[in-house]
This record gives sequence, C-alpha cells and structure tokens, in this order.
Amino acid sequence: MMKAREQNPADGRHVVIVGGGFAGLHAARRFGRRGYRVTLLDKRNFQLFQPLLYQVATGSLTIGDIAYPQRTLLRKMPKVWTLNTTVFDIDPEKRCVYHEHGELHYDLLVAATGVKHNYFGNDHWREHAPGLKTAEHAIQMRRRIFRAFEYAEMCEDDAERTKLLTFVVVGGGPTGVELAGALGELTRKTMVRDFRRFRSQDARIVLLEGGPDILPVYPASLRAKARKHLADLGVEVQTSAMVEDVNAEGVRVRHSDASERIEAKTVLWAAGVRPSLFGQVLADATGAERDRGGRLLVNPDCSLPTHPDIFVIGDLASLVDASGQQVPGLAPAAIQQGRYIADTVYRRDRGKKVKPFRYRDWGTMAVIGINRAVGNIRGWKTSGMLAWFLWAFVHIRALIDGEQRLRVFVNWSWKYFTRQMGDRLITGDPTHTQSLREARLRASQTAESQAAVEARRRDVA
Amino acid sequence: MMKAREQNPADGRHVVIVGGGFAGLHAARRFGRRGYRVTLLDKRNFQLFQPLLYQVATGSLTIGDIAYPQRTLLRKMPKVWTLNTTVFDIDPEKRCVYHEHGELHYDLLVAATGVKHNYFGNDHWREHAPGLKTAEHAIQMRRRIFRAFEYAEMCEDDAERTKLLTFVVVGGGPTGVELAGALGELTRKTMVRDFRRFRSQDARIVLLEGGPDILPVYPASLRAKARKHLADLGVEVQTSAMVEDVNAEGVRVRHSDASERIEAKTVLWAAGVRPSLFGQVLADATGAERDRGGRLLVNPDCSLPTHPDIFVIGDLASLVDASGQQVPGLAPAAIQQGRYIADTVYRRDRGKKVKPFRYRDWGTMAVIGINRAVGNIRGWKTSGMLAWFLWAFVHIRALIDGEQRLRVFVNWSWKYFTRQMGDRLITGDPTHTQSLREARLRASQTAESQAAVEARRRDVA
Repeated sequence: MMKAREQNPADGRHVVIVGGGFAGLHAARRFGRRGYRVTLLDKRNFQLFQPLLYQVATGSLTIGDIAYPQRTLLRKMPKVWTLNTTVFDIDPEKRCVYHEHGELHYDLLVAATGVKHNYFGNDHWREHAPGLKTAEHAIQMRRRIFRAFEYAEMCEDDAERTKLLTFVVVGGGPTGVELAGALGELTRKTMVRDFRRFRSQDARIVLLEGGPDILPVYPASLRAKARKHLADLGVEVQTSAMVEDVNAEGVRVRHSDASERIEAKTVLWAAGVRPSLFGQVLADATGAERDRGGRLLVNPDCSLPTHPDIFVIGDLASLVDASGQQVPGLAPAAIQQGRYIADTVYRRDRGKKVKPFRYRDWGTMAVIGINRAVGNIRGWKTSGMLAWFLWAFVHIRALIDGEQRLRVFVNWSWKYFTRQMGDRLITGDPTHTQSLREARLRASQTAESQAAVEARRRDVA
Repeated sequence: MMKAREQNPADGRHVVIVGGGFAGLHAARRFGRRGYRVTLLDKRNFQLFQPLLYQVATGSLTIGDIAYPQRTLLRKMPKVWTLNTTVFDIDPEKRCVYHEHGELHYDLLVAATGVKHNYFGNDHWREHAPGLKTAEHAIQMRRRIFRAFEYAEMCEDDAERTKLLTFVVVGGGPTGVELAGALGELTRKTMVRDFRRFRSQDARIVLLEGGPDILPVYPASLRAKARKHLADLGVEVQTSAMVEDVNAEGVRVRHSDASERIEAKTVLWAAGVRPSLFGQVLADATGAERDRGGRLLVNPDCSLPTHPDIFVIGDLASLVDASGQQVPGLAPAAIQQGRYIADTVYRRDRGKKVKPFRYRDWGTMAVIGINRAVGNIRGWKTSGMLAWFLWAFVHIRALIDGEQRLRVFVNWSWKYFTRQMGDRLITGDPTHTQSLREARLRASQTAESQAAVEARRRDVA
C-alpha cells in the first residue's frame, strides 16, 4: 500500500518523532519538507539551545535568549503537527506510542529524547549538586550561585562565609570547564564592586575531574591552554579526583593517595550522562542493545537492528559512523542525524541507494571566559581571543531564529564592552512564601550576633 | 550629636529603606549621593519594571528584559549597602527593623514595599485567577495562557476546547486593559498559523469591569478609543459586571439584572490592590491611619504623622499633594517621591526650608496592542499609532539600564516588523515530575476517545 502511489512515496506515511531538541526538530523539518505526515511530541513547548545553558546559570543570558517554541519553528509546515505532551510507553509490535493525552500510531518512529544526568548510583546527590540539562536546571543553578553571594554578604561567621564563597564544579568535560570559567569571569571581573563585606575575587572555584586531565577529547596542547585560561580566572583544577560523597556542606574527594573534604555550599554537577526515561523504556520494549553509557546501539542508517521502523538519533544513539569515528553527543551531530534519516527514508522510498551516516566534524570549541577559549577545528588548533570570537560567531549563527540571534548578539556585545551581565535574577523561590513566624524565630536565634552586624556595618560605611 | 559636625549633616545618620522598587531604589540613590549611610533591604535581589509585566505574561518580553539586580544599580555608591532579605517587623520606639537574618537600627526609615493583589475577601480565588505583581506571577500567568492553547490542540471535546480557549480578565484598569489587548494581539495576529485543530483567532477574550467604564481615570473620548481598539482585537468588554465567584471552570458575573456564568479555563486577575505585608505590619506598629484601600496616610512631606522619622513612599502611601491631587500609584510618582524625601531630609538637616511634595504628572498611557494605545499627556489626548510610539519611547527611556534598553528595543522592533514574539515558554512546572504511572492511568482513561484523535489527525493532514 505504501508504494501504491508513485508520485509521492511519502504520502500517507506517519512519522512520529519523540523529542524536539536539535535532532528531533531538524528531523521534523526535513521529513515535513519531504512531504511526510509528521507528529512531533515533546514534554516542553520549546527547543532549547543547550550548549549555552551554562551562560543562563551564570547570569550572562536569559532563558528566553536560548529557547524558542517548536510550534513557531514548524508553523509553516502544514503536515507537521506539534503536541506538548510526555510520551511514557511504546508498543513496537502495534506500532503505537502512549502519551499523557492518548496514543498515536506510527509508520516510522524517531526517538530523540537525549540524555539526562548520571549520578552513578548516587541519586541522592542530585539535591545538593544540581545538573544542567533543562531550563529549570539553569534557573535553579543561577538561584544557588547568586543566593550564595547574597548570604555571604549577610554572614557573620568567617568559616561559614568561606563555605558560602566556595564553588565546586564536578566534571572536567566541556560543560564543567565552561561553567567553572564562567564562575571565574563572574567573580574576578563582573562582580568585583558589588559587595561590601567580602571581595568577590576571593571566592574559591574548584573544578574536579576524575580522569588524568580536563577536556579529554582535546589535543594535549589545547588542554594545557585551557588549564592556563582557567588558572588566569582563579579556577583551581584537580584531576584524578574522584567524588566520594556530596552533601549540603560540601564534597569528599579521593585522590590517588588520600581523601579530602572540600567545604562548599554550592556544588554543581557536570559529570556523566545516561539515557532519558523514554530511551530506557524504548530499550526495554525493543530489546535494543546498549553501550556502556546506556545509549542505544544503532545501525549505520540510525535505525534499531531489531526494528528497522524505529530510528534513534542525537545523544540517545550510539554509533560508530562510516569513517570509523564514534559520533559525539554534540548539537551538530544531532542536527546532521535528523536530516540524514529523513533524506535516507525518502531515498529508500523512491528505490534509491542509501549511504550510511557519516558525521562531518566542523570542530569543537570550549569557552572559558571572555577572550579565552580553545578550539580544534578540523585539526587546526586555536586558543585565546581568536578562538573566542570564532566561538561567538558559531554560536550566534547556530541560534535558529533571527530575533534570538539579535538578542544574543546585543547581550554579548554589551557584556564584551562593559563586562557587565544582564540576568542575575534570583527567581522561582520567593522568600515571602516562608511564614513570618518562622522568619521571626530564625531572627531571634541570631539576634545576639546581630549587635555585631551593626558594628561591622559602621566599619564599612 | 547628629548636628555636631557641620560639614556634612548627613554624616553618621543611618537610613534604612525597605523595598527596592522604583520608590525605594531612587530614594537609596539620592540619599547615597547626599552622603547618607543607607541600607536597602529587599526580599528580591532585583528591581522589576512592573508596568511591563503583562508583556512577560503574554510572551513579548522575557523577565530578564525588565528586571535588574539592585546591587549592580547601586554598586558605585560605597555608602549604600544592599541586603537580600525579608523584613517582617518593626519597633518604632527602639527604631529597629527585624529581618530574616537579624535586626537593624535606623535613624530614618523609608517604607516602600508597595501593594499586592486584593481579592476582596475571597483569597481562595487566587489559585484560579493569578494576579500580576511579581516576576513569578508573570511566569505563572504565561504558563497558564500558553498551556491552555497546548491543551486545546490536543482536546477531543468541543465544549472543553471552547472552555480552554476562553480567557477572562478581571479588572478594567490599565493592567487589565493592557493584558486583554495583548491577548487579542496574540490570538488575532501572532499565533494565527500555529495550531492545526482550531483557529487562534476564535479564542474568546472577555474583559470584566465592575464600574461603568474601563480606564476610569481617562477622559471619555480616550475611553471610547480604548474600547474601539479592544473591539478591533476581538476583546469583549463587559462593564458594570461584578465577579461573584471564581473557580477552576470559570467565573460567575452579576450584571445589574442577572447573573451569568462564563466557562473559562483561564481567569486572570487585575482588579484592586492592598498594602504589602510589611505595610500592614508598619500600620499596626505605628497606629498610622489608612485610607479606604488600606494605604497609609502621610504628611505633605511623606512622613508618618505619628513618626516623623518614618517615611512612606510609592504605592504604599496615600497622599493628596500640594496641588490638591491624589498622588497616583504609578512609577513616576514613586520615583519622584523617592528623590523628594532624600532632598527634603538633606535640606532640613542643613536648616533650609522644605516644600511639600508635589506630583508632576507627565501623562498616562495605556497600550492595547501594536499601533494601538491611548495617552493623556498633560491634557493632550492622543491615540492610535502616535500614542503607541510615544508609549514605546517613554517605556524604553524609563528602563534604567543601557543593556536593557537595547534588548527591549531589539525585541520590540522585531515584534513590530515581524509580528512574532520571542518568549512563549512554558517553564517552571515540568511535566516529567508527574509519575509515569499517573500518566499511564490518565491515558488509559482517555484511550477510547483516542481512536478519534488519529482519525481527526488524518483529516488535518
């Protein structure tokens, strides 16, 4: 029946895409353009530019700068339908997915739900060490970071203030490096005049990496540059440092020889990923093989070996491509896979030959602060100001929408020339929900030490 | 002792300001510049440009566009100290305020904590009809509005969909009018191509006003213009309409003759204000007289009649000024009062004569949609595109920070020329927190009706 109408082989086939990130969104666009009937299901109503989330967490960008409603991005495609709902199960035999508001039959399924944080069996650490995968994560992280400074400004106790001004970033991959670098920029440049009771540049920033060096996928010369950039911004890098415990008061770290405790009120998690919930459900339902990180192993055309009508793309997929390279969990790879599967299905439907997926590596780059970045562009190594400008150009270019490009450009130009930042708001957890009685109780407990507040206050003025 | 040093009468005196909105922030700046030692206490770490909150709620601006950290705005004033804490009590005899993290002695107190929503004794309506005073309110309102559209796109039942696409705004003052106008713009212009199962322009928007007309402070000719602008955008205005009940399914409205129920999933509250919690605490502690709306009556110099060392400014104060005019609860009045009290205290400390506060009315303006606004500028009445441009100019100019001006300018220009909006994100209430089991249960309950989803889905494509 599918081949019955020769004019458009896409006709009548229903492609269901789960997940509207880079992979899913670009698959939806390409399938839609090829004439397929597409339904895109996402629990969020917006696409998020995840590589820049750390800039929201550290107050450089606002979340609206890096997110855009999928519905609007797909509005011009009448055959693409967007639904804001959570998919929780699949029946591969019936070709059916089950979501919050019902069920949908598919002819082809595309799973692009990505990954979430991995606490390596210590999920109770999550509460004390938030990760950075969603918009809410970024806002929560921002709240923790800026609240720590606010509390430090009111804190009477020197040891407690030191703990408030200690920030631990776990994970020396690009996210951890960029996050630690942004904290260095924030405390050494942006906020130097903001506080009266401490110098923001005295804040301690510790980057912990379990392996022998940070940024393991980069060449040694760029790793050394990155370490220098971090040192310039006051970031203390500890390698071969395994986190043994995380709680509200800090982390315990094991080095080769001994364990050390780092007292810190703010611990940020940028280490390791595991498949999204739907990825796990899909693996269970299809019996798909998974790699060490839990990602689903796929055929060279990105379909599941057991189910050729199911494609897995983006961070959720594990694939060694045609050139023998492990496809990395990066936005460009996700975009290329999304487009690839639509083209491949279309070619196959027209009886043409298809090629296996091949990742085109346009380079990777990590930014550590303004004018400080390292880049590896098809073997060409760059660092410093040039790398930073390249990075800024690439990221602004990759932001899908024209208005977003403009906004981010304005924000960054402003930041570049003034060293100021625009969105250091503490939102989402308003103090006024706390009862007055409780506040009064806390105050009476600390009232004695507050004679000292006033005395010190006078010193300041 | 205070007058001991003649060189600077400000020396050694401690001004404590509670609340960092327009009034408090401008008082802090002016007192700081005059050489007074100032402590600004606010439960938020940012100043919010409240007149534009409705644009965040309807997706035109992002919250970072209209908020800025007080700490950064005051960083250049070494004698001004900013603390991010909630004040919950005051002892006017001891001259002491009590906050979350301790207590502070003052020589002069400035209360500028503003107002919050008034549900006129029906505080249980709050849950179903969120107001618009804080950043979280705006994000919550945005979530409700855009989620209603998302649900409507998935809804099988026609009556239910109609209910999801009915929006009721309670209150015909500037906020209510602007909010209803923005909803009209959103549904009649911005989103017309976004949905497949309904036309966004079929959404019903009802603006309810208890009095005989909307925008009661405006002249009759401008009220008529505003009604026309609203009608052009599909907003249905009901006057002399008293809300009798609000619940999750809509509102009951009493007109002169009979009661009517409006079935609506989204009810937004823009009617009436009452003093902030600290305003009430202050009134109780000082025995200050209050007007009908609960605001504190102040002397012509904005001090409390019972306590000349306590000033009340901004929305919290009730004052008929030197020209016999009731000072309105608007940002310009708050700014003027903040500056006035600092100048007045300074003059008095130097033994100079002081004048009573006099509000300089630069005009009021309400915007109903792009190219649609009404303005009353010192008696000069304007409407339409000219009023809209004036409004845009005045608002952009009033945004304190240079970067914010640029960002808002970019956003609005973009919106103006493309009729697109930038920040329609549903955040802060992620669906994935809902357990899978629960989702599955809901799905199985609706599974039967979902055979129809697929059928209708085919019709759409």
